[in-house]
Amino acid sequence: MSEAVSTLDGWWSLHLLYNVDWTALRLLDEAEQDALISELQAFLDKQQAVQDEKNGSYAFYNITGQKADLLLWLLRPTVDELNALELEFNKLQISEFLMPSYSYVSVVEMSSYLAKDSDEDPYENPYVKSRLYPDLPKSQYICFYPMDKKRDGDDNWYMLPMEERQKLMRDHGMIGRSYAGKIKQYITGSQGLDKYEWGVTLLSDDMLEFKKIIYEMRFDETSARYGVFGDFYVGVHIPNDQLDLLFK
Amino acid sequence: MSEAVSTLDGWWSLHLLYNVDWTALRLLDEAEQDALISELQAFLDKQQAVQDEKNGSYAFYNITGQKADLLLWLLRPTVDELNALELEFNKLQISEFLMPSYSYVSVVEMSSYLAKDSDEDPYENPYVKSRLYPDLPKSQYICFYPMDKKRDGDDNWYMLPMEERQKLMRDHGMIGRSYAGKIKQYITGSQGLDKYEWGVTLLSDDMLEFKKIIYEMRFDETSARYGVFGDFYVGVHIPNDQLDLLFK
Amino acid sequence: MSEAVSTLDGWWSLHLLYNVDWTALRLLDEAEQDALISELQAFLDKQQAVQDEKNGSYAFYNITGQKADLLLWLLRPTVDELNALELEFNKLQISEFLMPSYSYVSVVEMSSYLAKDSDEDPYENPYVKSRLYPDLPKSQYICFYPMDKKRDGDDNWYMLPMEERQKLMRDHGMIGRSYAGKIKQYITGSQGLDKYEWGVTLLSDDMLEFKKIIYEMRFDETSARYGVFGDFYVGVHIPNDQLDLLFK
Amino acid sequence: MSEAVSTLDGWWSLHLLYNVDWTALRLLDEAEQDALISELQAFLDKQQAVQDEKNGSYAFYNITGQKADLLLWLLRPTVDELNALELEFNKLQISEFLMPSYSYVSVVEMSSYLAKDSDEDPYENPYVKSRLYPDLPKSQYICFYPMDKKRDGDDNWYMLPMEERQKLMRDHGMIGRSYAGKIKQYITGSQGLDKYEWGVTLLSDDMLEFKKIIYEMRFDETSARYGVFGDFYVGVHIPNDQLDLLFK
Amino acid sequence: MSEAVSTLDGWWSLHLLYNVDWTALRLLDEAEQDALISELQAFLDKQQAVQDEKNGSYAFYNITGQKADLLLWLLRPTVDELNALELEFNKLQISEFLMPSYSYVSVVEMSSYLAKDSDEDPYENPYVKSRLYPDLPKSQYICFYPMDKKRDGDDNWYMLPMEERQKLMRDHGMIGRSYAGKIKQYITGSQGLDKYEWGVTLLSDDMLEFKKIIYEMRFDETSARYGVFGDFYVGVHIPNDQLDLLFK
Repeated sequence: MSEAVSTLDGWWSLHLLYNVDWTALRLLDEAEQDALISELQAFLDKQQAVQDEKNGSYAFYNITGQKADLLLWLLRPTVDELNALELEFNKLQISEFLMPSYSYVSVVEMSSYLAKDSDEDPYENPYVKSRLYPDLPKSQYICFYPMDKKRDGDDNWYMLPMEERQKLMRDHGMIGRSYAGKIKQYITGSQGLDKYEWGVTLLSDDMLEFKKIIYEMRFDETSARYGVFGDFYVGVHIPNDQLDLLFK
Repeated sequence: MSEAVSTLDGWWSLHLLYNVDWTALRLLDEAEQDALISELQAFLDKQQAVQDEKNGSYAFYNITGQKADLLLWLLRPTVDELNALELEFNKLQISEFLMPSYSYVSVVEMSSYLAKDSDEDPYENPYVKSRLYPDLPKSQYICFYPMDKKRDGDDNWYMLPMEERQKLMRDHGMIGRSYAGKIKQYITGSQGLDKYEWGVTLLSDDMLEFKKIIYEMRFDETSARYGVFGDFYVGVHIPNDQLDLLFK
Repeated sequence: MSEAVSTLDGWWSLHLLYNVDWTALRLLDEAEQDALISELQAFLDKQQAVQDEKNGSYAFYNITGQKADLLLWLLRPTVDELNALELEFNKLQISEFLMPSYSYVSVVEMSSYLAKDSDEDPYENPYVKSRLYPDLPKSQYICFYPMDKKRDGDDNWYMLPMEERQKLMRDHGMIGRSYAGKIKQYITGSQGLDKYEWGVTLLSDDMLEFKKIIYEMRFDETSARYGVFGDFYVGVHIPNDQLDLLFK
Repeated sequence: MSEAVSTLDGWWSLHLLYNVDWTALRLLDEAEQDALISELQAFLDKQQAVQDEKNGSYAFYNITGQKADLLLWLLRPTVDELNALELEFNKLQISEFLMPSYSYVSVVEMSSYLAKDSDEDPYENPYVKSRLYPDLPKSQYICFYPMDKKRDGDDNWYMLPMEERQKLMRDHGMIGRSYAGKIKQYITGSQGLDKYEWGVTLLSDDMLEFKKIIYEMRFDETSARYGVFGDFYVGVHIPNDQLDLLFK
Repeated sequence: MSEAVSTLDGWWSLHLLYNVDWTALRLLDEAEQDALISELQAFLDKQQAVQDEKNGSYAFYNITGQKADLLLWLLRPTVDELNALELEFNKLQISEFLMPSYSYVSVVEMSSYLAKDSDEDPYENPYVKSRLYPDLPKSQYICFYPMDKKRDGDDNWYMLPMEERQKLMRDHGMIGRSYAGKIKQYITGSQGLDKYEWGVTLLSDDMLEFKKIIYEMRFDETSARYGVFGDFYVGVHIPNDQLDLLFK
């Protein structure tokens, strides 16, 4: 038995991806469209208010390509709040025109592979707190993908000794750090919560940076031998007051 | 040929997962919605009465994310009863608004890897009986996932000698026991009954415990080398008299 | 090149699995439902008449869980008859309320791994005939699953020498024989006819026996190293004159 | 780098498989059904005329089981003609009642593994011509399946030396030849054209021969180690003037 | 850790594949069809105008077989433009009759495996510019497929030393170059942007060349050991002023 590394767990996280039934939406008359858009904007503005009060965070993006049209990402202190928000969203009028494409339940997470030994309560450390309870910026682009660590014959992450995993994660983290200032990276863990083990959500004002970091990391042993990737969703930011661009 | 370990078999089990057509449901007028909810509540109250008489058990949860909206879990002494219950449920009005997302047929099971030798009839042992014919608590959260043991090249659970499997299961069980009081764990077996070999259903009042136990177990050789996992479904408890929260 | 073992081939076999659109069915008025049920019963009674005349056989079960609701299994001397029966079934009124969930085309088969050397024509042997042209009993439960033999690296059934395969099949058969009297087992072969290579259909008056035999066999090298299993479908018998239980 | 073997390429090939919406078809009145059938028969008769003039060939079968109901197989000198035929077929009235189930784009092909050295232009050889530009017979049964050669660890067809592949293909061909007179075999290649690498289409007046040849070949190293098979579709011939049997 | 090779990145790329609902389209009257076709032609003509001004490029093809009917390929300097174009396309009337079948988000890319050392800014090199910002020709045929490099046990591209990858890519490139004049090849990279890692789009006036190059390359170690291929889509060019051929 290999030694597990404990994680620090922050806010609960729910990624909701939807396709839009554009044809049905266009059958609404202008007043109906406006009402639908106003209702959605009010919902999003409420998320902003919660974020402003540091009681959660959210993101809303238009996904490029056919895998999804919208990504709504919600962060809250409890899963009950996320569950209630999902029910509330399902009752908005826009949801009559949405078809679920993918969802992902997880918890914002920091592994302690890189932790310094200390007597300090990590949950009181300001840096740790800013990572576990993030204030998501309105970056121009998003990239979201779920992933596993491989367990296949000789390539079994979970059978590696702790020191080996620690070394690999340290090298991996070095690449990540070299993108500081260009990409914000959010890791959420979902063992026992969803099919994949982790979700990675990247925010940036230059979408090409997503390609560069993932390409560079793929040659790193952590990804090359042990990374198993789900689908990648990229998209463009939609400000709450510009929903007309999407729906009209 | 490796030696099989006999199992103790308890109640029959049926997990039914559904997505809700929220849009169609909202087209009903208030009186129709109330009638539909009352009928469903009566069905669930009947399940509670059966549970109170120790003739079965059940659970009803609202699943978080898009993979499903509802999980109805039914336990009964015979598969005929489960089959009849499924037909009865399909004839409730709510079922017009439900789309099947996943189902799982199995039997509550205890393996005898951990059994003490004894002349006692295990089916008369009170502890064993409480495990095979469980009285499911109304915990706040549920986690359900199906799984297999791997049969792939050198990682073939079913080719291991009995002693090796016994040792691995003992270590695995130690982790499980360390969560006693925090998580209730129910194992159901489905060889010959469904695609996966086992179902694991966890109940807890703290959803983060699901993440912690599964994460810790993944480094245990039983999971690391031999575990093959299906999808994970987590959800929040809906009391029978609060169905309005879901459907209105 | 490994030596193939010839098979004895009996009746042609067609497994048809369907989900029922219960909601649409309930929209019919009572007289329409009765007409639909009578027509289906007449179709099934005709299958019974063919079985009584030893010109084929059939089975009709209600599948438990959501993977399917109905299993209709048809056996006939020629594939043309099965093809015509499928077209006929598609024209029954019930078929307006059925959605195909899985089908499987095969031929009842005996391998000669276990054959005694003899000058006798096996097709004249009464035991062989009863196996190749079976008279299916009305057992209370059914279990059906398709399967392959693995061809993966060192675990390649088709690269084993004949003697090795013969020995493995003999051990495997020993387990099967220990369930005689409890389970009737029907093997149908589909190389060149369908995606999987074999179908296994089990009939029993105790569904727990399905779990026991499959669990025990999984530790047998034939299954442990070489078995690749499709989905498992289990269900409860519906007598021709009790279709009301299902559809009303 | 392993040496590629050049292929001889004949007519372009398009396999189109469809499911029929029997319920919707039955809603047509008799005159509408007759018109639809006449139009389809005229389309098929035109294919026959092209075949009679040696400008192409075609086949039309009723698939057994639920994977598809119809298989239309079209051969032509150019892909443009096939493309235009597909558009034409999509505009027939019958196509309103068809749901695509699988299609396969390829080219009739002969590999030169078995070629004799010669100065002759193979495209002038009468035997080669009869293979590359086949005149499909109206056999009672069809079997169609797509396949790949495996590229997995030590079982990598494309890394074998030419001599090894040649020897394996020669043994494989020996089995094929032993079915001469019982089965007509057509190989079409689709590297760069479709997901699988080859399609195999078999025609016979005895469907059991499909099972026998595929079963025997599976023990041959070419299939046992290197064959990766898609789905198998089998069906019964429908003469152009007996479409009523299908659709009424 | 293996050394990554930097890439040169050109225009953003979006492949959109759709199936057409031919039946619904035929229900339009002639005037409605003409309006729909005119609107689509105007959209395509606008793409041509952008291409004429060197601000992007596009292609429009009719896919053969059932996997898709239409392929619209768009190239632009920014992903924002592609995103806006996708929203615009979704609002055309034709889109009411289109069902998404596959999409792919990527960036035109040149790897520097083959780069000569030089002080020159590669983005100023005319050859590089013509590759990164291509002016797509109106070739008669298209072939598009996504692909990965394998990471599986001993066959792990990303664990190879740089020199080994360089040598393999050089050999691979030699095959490609031997098709110069017959096939135009466009490579787009999608690490961090879509599920596959690369897309290959080939244009030619002879569709058989697609089969020849892919077949030949499959024996090359780069493909044989390390290539993982998605689906292949092939199709025929539709000039903007001949949309009637498709839709009427």
